[in-house]
Amino acid sequence: MPTISSKGERLPASPIRKLVPYAEAAKARGTKVYHLNIGQPDIPTPVVALESVWHEPARIIEYTHSAGNESYRRKLAETYYKGVGIEIDPKDIIVTVGGSEGLLIAMTVCMDAGDEALVPEPFYANYNGFAAESGIILKPINSTIETDFALPPIEEFERYITPRTKAILICNPNNPTGYLYSREELEVLRDLVKKYDLFLFCDEVYREFCYDGAVHHSVLNLEGIEQNVVMIDSVSKRYSMCGARIGTIISRNREVTAAALRVGQARLCPPFYEQIAAEAAVDTPKSYFEQVHQEYTDRRNYIVNALNEIPGVHCPMPRGAFYAMVRLPIDDCDRFARWMLEEFSYQGQTVMVAPGTGFYANPALGKDEVRIAYVLKVDDLKNAVTCLREGLKAYPGRTNL
Amino acid sequence: MPTISSKGERLPASPIRKLVPYAEAAKARGTKVYHLNIGQPDIPTPVVALESVWHEPARIIEYTHSAGNESYRRKLAETYYKGVGIEIDPKDIIVTVGGSEGLLIAMTVCMDAGDEALVPEPFYANYNGFAAESGIILKPINSTIETDFALPPIEEFERYITPRTKAILICNPNNPTGYLYSREELEVLRDLVKKYDLFLFCDEVYREFCYDGAVHHSVLNLEGIEQNVVMIDSVSKRYSMCGARIGTIISRNREVTAAALRVGQARLCPPFYEQIAAEAAVDTPKSYFEQVHQEYTDRRNYIVNALNEIPGVHCPMPRGAFYAMVRLPIDDCDRFARWMLEEFSYQGQTVMVAPGTGFYANPALGKDEVRIAYVLKVDDLKNAVTCLREGLKAYPGRTNL
Repeated sequence: MPTISSKGERLPASPIRKLVPYAEAAKARGTKVYHLNIGQPDIPTPVVALESVWHEPARIIEYTHSAGNESYRRKLAETYYKGVGIEIDPKDIIVTVGGSEGLLIAMTVCMDAGDEALVPEPFYANYNGFAAESGIILKPINSTIETDFALPPIEEFERYITPRTKAILICNPNNPTGYLYSREELEVLRDLVKKYDLFLFCDEVYREFCYDGAVHHSVLNLEGIEQNVVMIDSVSKRYSMCGARIGTIISRNREVTAAALRVGQARLCPPFYEQIAAEAAVDTPKSYFEQVHQEYTDRRNYIVNALNEIPGVHCPMPRGAFYAMVRLPIDDCDRFARWMLEEFSYQGQTVMVAPGTGFYANPALGKDEVRIAYVLKVDDLKNAVTCLREGLKAYPGRTNL
Repeated sequence: MPTISSKGERLPASPIRKLVPYAEAAKARGTKVYHLNIGQPDIPTPVVALESVWHEPARIIEYTHSAGNESYRRKLAETYYKGVGIEIDPKDIIVTVGGSEGLLIAMTVCMDAGDEALVPEPFYANYNGFAAESGIILKPINSTIETDFALPPIEEFERYITPRTKAILICNPNNPTGYLYSREELEVLRDLVKKYDLFLFCDEVYREFCYDGAVHHSVLNLEGIEQNVVMIDSVSKRYSMCGARIGTIISRNREVTAAALRVGQARLCPPFYEQIAAEAAVDTPKSYFEQVHQEYTDRRNYIVNALNEIPGVHCPMPRGAFYAMVRLPIDDCDRFARWMLEEFSYQGQTVMVAPGTGFYANPALGKDEVRIAYVLKVDDLKNAVTCLREGLKAYPGRTNL
């Protein structure tokens, strides 16, 4: 029997999904499980996107352009990106199979096996998967709950720069912390990127989710590093169409986009129907976003305040995305998350959370943290918070009793 | 300005698509271009698949399971694969973003950077892209037009086996040659795979396209190498839904499928609507395939015979897929293909072919060959053959005048 590759062995199991069998078992026992563990919003996809698929007249589901439909790329540049203050040429856009493929392509075409990317941790766990696939090394720079997960001091980044450092990777607004980087923080990164001639990869898929009047600054608007910036985007969260698998990789560096297109040609094209839906979604009325924005603001305000009222719990108020990292009075978040599904229920209900450890490269970190996604209605969040509060009372590994 | 990776530079441009600008220029001049260069069939997608999308009631385009919808995997195993004589457990199936992703995953989870896969050449040009992305090395074993591209003698394979050899990669029925491997040829490969404990990757996306009563033998039915076989499949050609990007990777080796699922989790899921369409397509009536089979048989018979009537042209009669490698009396197929688009037209029409060189790793080979895809109606093929015949008369690089 031939053995799989060391790369295949190194590929991490999803820390979020490894608890799924326990959640399924809980449901099989009749327990209602509130899913705070995954960023699957319950917000309907814009009707204009659904209708475009229902009424698509094509009789052959044909290959599209490897860079994505030209009409879609043009509409993205001329309508969507212009509308959010980003001036970009359609030629600089490649449509990808979700933000996931965009990031994998960025790593593949910009970095060789063994090259290093600095990334503030905690970070989105799937970055580990893309790093394993492309053979690159992620060097975590620790950010902490004490500073609400602000950008670590730039000296921290500089300390980790080696001849193999090729890129800095950030996610803004941040998954899993909900932190929104300020213009000043981005400019500090800009100077570092320029000084060491690095790539700056930025995952901006939560651009629409900023609260308290805060403004999102795209890395594409940072002056002086136009050739260094690679921006990763997706329609998954913007239009609540996570299953569409439509994203973009955008760079003004034509070597990067040319190489990205060569990857795109090898895999032929992004999916047919979802490109049509994504193009139609650009016309989603403003009222949709206003409603969604209000809904998420209410959810965030409710859950963050309610969590902070539980003794021993600390949750910074996030200004972006729809996640929060929460510190709990527990010994081990992996044990706690599993215990909540396997051993606990309160009035026939329980909660699934994502263990914090999955978002840290350093195995010593995140043990008393969990990530929550506030993607449920406030009434459901209320029940979820009640379960968490009661669970923490009963959990045998509770710390500061 | 940071430089792209050596991996990014090594990524090959698609040899099929690099002529596209010349085709577009020809069209802009008013010339009708017959596309024999790409495997995009003109056959309608089964209505049952289209209707499933038109009537899909979901209001949120949600993430699906990372391995693909469970109902789809079960239906594949219990209906489709059973129907073609392959007994497989749904657990051994991972739904991929097209056959392309399936092959990239196979290379990623089974092979490390620097590992070698033996592949009979000419081979599907995009294998080079997946090899560059995953860092593996393809070792071509030459098959020739003189033997109709039959499996090269097994000694040829053995001669290239090194300690880094990890896999053999075949495509059956073959793109680009149309060759259908016999049971005996597959058993010879089986013995070799067993002797050296290699993986056997087989791209079977053209399974439905076998002619003259020939039977397709799947590598999944080879006895004694159950743990070595990784089969790559796709709905693209079967149901003429190339743009759907739905494929499968199937192996009874649970280490392989577990690692493949970890890749799947990192990229989250295959596209939503096309999985629904692919599941519905399993119920495509038999009459659809009978019609398609008759249509392709007619096309093949017409074009292969017509090509062989042109002086100096030789085209083996393919028994599978919908491609043929054709030897032309020319100096350089890249020059010829471009000349046909840039300089030539006959009665306002011309033909786009895929240069043979793109399918060989050895740059000295394939110079007088082109690949044609007989994916057009016979009337269009007639015009295309006329253009080719007239083009060969006028082409300045014609050899055996």
